[in-house]
Amino acid sequence: MAQMMETSAEAYRSALLDDVVPFWEAHCLDKEFGGYINCLDRDGLPYDHEKHMWMQWRIVYMFSELALAEFGQPRWAEHAWLGYDFLTQHGKSPDGGYYFALNRAGVPTVAPYNLYSDCFAAMGSAALFHASGREECRDEALSAMDSYIKRMDNPKGRWCKAMPGQERRLSLGHFMILANLGTVMKRHLDSDRYEADTARAVETALDKFHNPKFGVLFENVGADGSFDLDSCAGRHLNPGHGLEALWFIMDYARRAGRPDLAKRAAAIVKSTIEFAWDKERGGIFYFMDATGRPNPELQWDMKLWWVHCEALVALLMAYKLTDDSDFLDWFKQVHSWTWGHFPDPGHGEWFAYLNRAGEPTSTLKGGKWKCFFHLPRMLLTCSELLNEIEQAKGKVFPCA
Amino acid sequence: MAQMMETSAEAYRSALLDDVVPFWEAHCLDKEFGGYINCLDRDGLPYDHEKHMWMQWRIVYMFSELALAEFGQPRWAEHAWLGYDFLTQHGKSPDGGYYFALNRAGVPTVAPYNLYSDCFAAMGSAALFHASGREECRDEALSAMDSYIKRMDNPKGRWCKAMPGQERRLSLGHFMILANLGTVMKRHLDSDRYEADTARAVETALDKFHNPKFGVLFENVGADGSFDLDSCAGRHLNPGHGLEALWFIMDYARRAGRPDLAKRAAAIVKSTIEFAWDKERGGIFYFMDATGRPNPELQWDMKLWWVHCEALVALLMAYKLTDDSDFLDWFKQVHSWTWGHFPDPGHGEWFAYLNRAGEPTSTLKGGKWKCFFHLPRMLLTCSELLNEIEQAKGKVFPCA
Repeated sequence: MAQMMETSAEAYRSALLDDVVPFWEAHCLDKEFGGYINCLDRDGLPYDHEKHMWMQWRIVYMFSELALAEFGQPRWAEHAWLGYDFLTQHGKSPDGGYYFALNRAGVPTVAPYNLYSDCFAAMGSAALFHASGREECRDEALSAMDSYIKRMDNPKGRWCKAMPGQERRLSLGHFMILANLGTVMKRHLDSDRYEADTARAVETALDKFHNPKFGVLFENVGADGSFDLDSCAGRHLNPGHGLEALWFIMDYARRAGRPDLAKRAAAIVKSTIEFAWDKERGGIFYFMDATGRPNPELQWDMKLWWVHCEALVALLMAYKLTDDSDFLDWFKQVHSWTWGHFPDPGHGEWFAYLNRAGEPTSTLKGGKWKCFFHLPRMLLTCSELLNEIEQAKGKVFPCA
Repeated sequence: MAQMMETSAEAYRSALLDDVVPFWEAHCLDKEFGGYINCLDRDGLPYDHEKHMWMQWRIVYMFSELALAEFGQPRWAEHAWLGYDFLTQHGKSPDGGYYFALNRAGVPTVAPYNLYSDCFAAMGSAALFHASGREECRDEALSAMDSYIKRMDNPKGRWCKAMPGQERRLSLGHFMILANLGTVMKRHLDSDRYEADTARAVETALDKFHNPKFGVLFENVGADGSFDLDSCAGRHLNPGHGLEALWFIMDYARRAGRPDLAKRAAAIVKSTIEFAWDKERGGIFYFMDATGRPNPELQWDMKLWWVHCEALVALLMAYKLTDDSDFLDWFKQVHSWTWGHFPDPGHGEWFAYLNRAGEPTSTLKGGKWKCFFHLPRMLLTCSELLNEIEQAKGKVFPCA
């Protein structure tokens, strides 16, 4: 399969519809309790029944997005409802926060400490509103969005371990997600309510997190956009985050009619992939230190499925928006390495975690941090982009 | 160096005194602000100046222990004071908790959320009392010990994210550490004050955490000693923790005159190393799932310096206490792999993190989780054990 994978819209759509969607449809739906089983081993057997809220809401989102696609099936909206009903019934604390995890039956196990739970609830609810037209989903989306924006100023709340009085750092993830949330709300709620927030997130990412000297987005910067090169946290890079943020920005630029922003973001995509590509073993590093000093995370040199998914989208979107053939070359290179290492033919879906050399280190297909989200979103988005490119240019890509 | 390392008391002592101690003496002492620089790159250059309290107090402990050794140097006690004075002046919150981290100048950066900070403060203060005779150190040790024991019932305090009402799980680390703390307090304070707590910790580890079917200590068990094989957390194994706990138990058994406990612990050492040894690539896994299902931690298959240090001590102590030659064979095998992969000749000290194949993935020699502790403690303890064995038997070990 790895050798046969074409860089074509048809090949990407086939991987989505003939491999990834059937895997999750067959194994993740918890018809007994509602919600999803998100910890799935190589062949789809569960190895844990904890329901992690990020994963659950992301599955609601993805089935809703697919139900809206031109090839959408009505049963995919039903799969989204299976999660939505369970999560709105069991997944919210009395003060409206989203728990971080529930047990299989829906009893909350981990408190609503994490800001990103709000984000994925907003995305899932908005997309399901679009797919169903039911107002309760719009209300849920708006309330989760408002909560996300409100919490950005104090993201860890009472669980914050940092001592007061220190200089505040901004975190790329918060702005990256907001840039995407704005586009998702615009598309699915047909609402301009978050356009100003989205514009602010996009400009903050480009103005404050982009370090021109290194050509990449830093992960943690001062509130004034200053870079701290003296600490591990200040030098920390997460290239997958950077590339994901950059395609969210280009996606915003495209719909907002801002070619200036698209051009700036595309230039950073190029310098990021050049910086983060592993010249010895291929693939993209998970974490890096901007200056090459030790990154304290043990898994820094591993190759993760989602990083490669986000890179493929970013490179293809940059090519589509700039027509610069460097992006096409990089897309082919990342495509080739990715499809040569992550798929698991004969068992279905992709491995999540490879070591630096590209060998899988785990058989899990779903877990606390992987579900039905990055991979199907990439396959859907790349098949759409490839289709647009093919319409304009014909099938210019040979097999990788 | 790797090929030349003998399994002799002299070789282990030489590695301690000619390599590891000089590396830390040359690079970690912060003579400008007090305390230590614990984030050191390959040749000892700092890559961050954050002062992580576990690391800082462990360095106080280790220099104090070394000052007490037969080859102790007076300057090692001075090195311990450099940390002790800084940590007692800057490292405690108004209510007596130990911060998790300080900046270089001593301003607290991370709140006192972590129970283990108390543990290492107790160890460092007790050993420095023994080395100096100064009462303030004894008081500090007793107060930190009392705090540790008190906090065991609610280890995460206000930072606990688990929802109330769930069945409580016991954590092996808490009992493992208490088993060692009791022995440290007995030796350095000459006090029986914690003997009952120590005996309880040892019996809990053997009675509740040992799963006879798997032959290993589990990491998380029910308060009644039940095993949850249905969840990742319930099946989680940390073989390094297990081996470290078992040598703490044998150490207790030896001084308490309890050969029955030593025999039980030694049997589990053997089944643990058989379970956790990587039959394909050599070395001991960091984390495992008891039933072979996916462990959710990305770094589960990596080979860590401290795991191999604790394994060497456990195997040698088991051999010393049982005279079973299987332990000697295992010790030689672990010795050979460890010395063949972790040392960094020409630069000094050991790599912290290897991938599964045994290649270093980072150049760091000290960091947020590695300092002057596991390696020198192992070298000191093994050289003492080897000396005892050599006295009894002559030099029975050929070169590895």
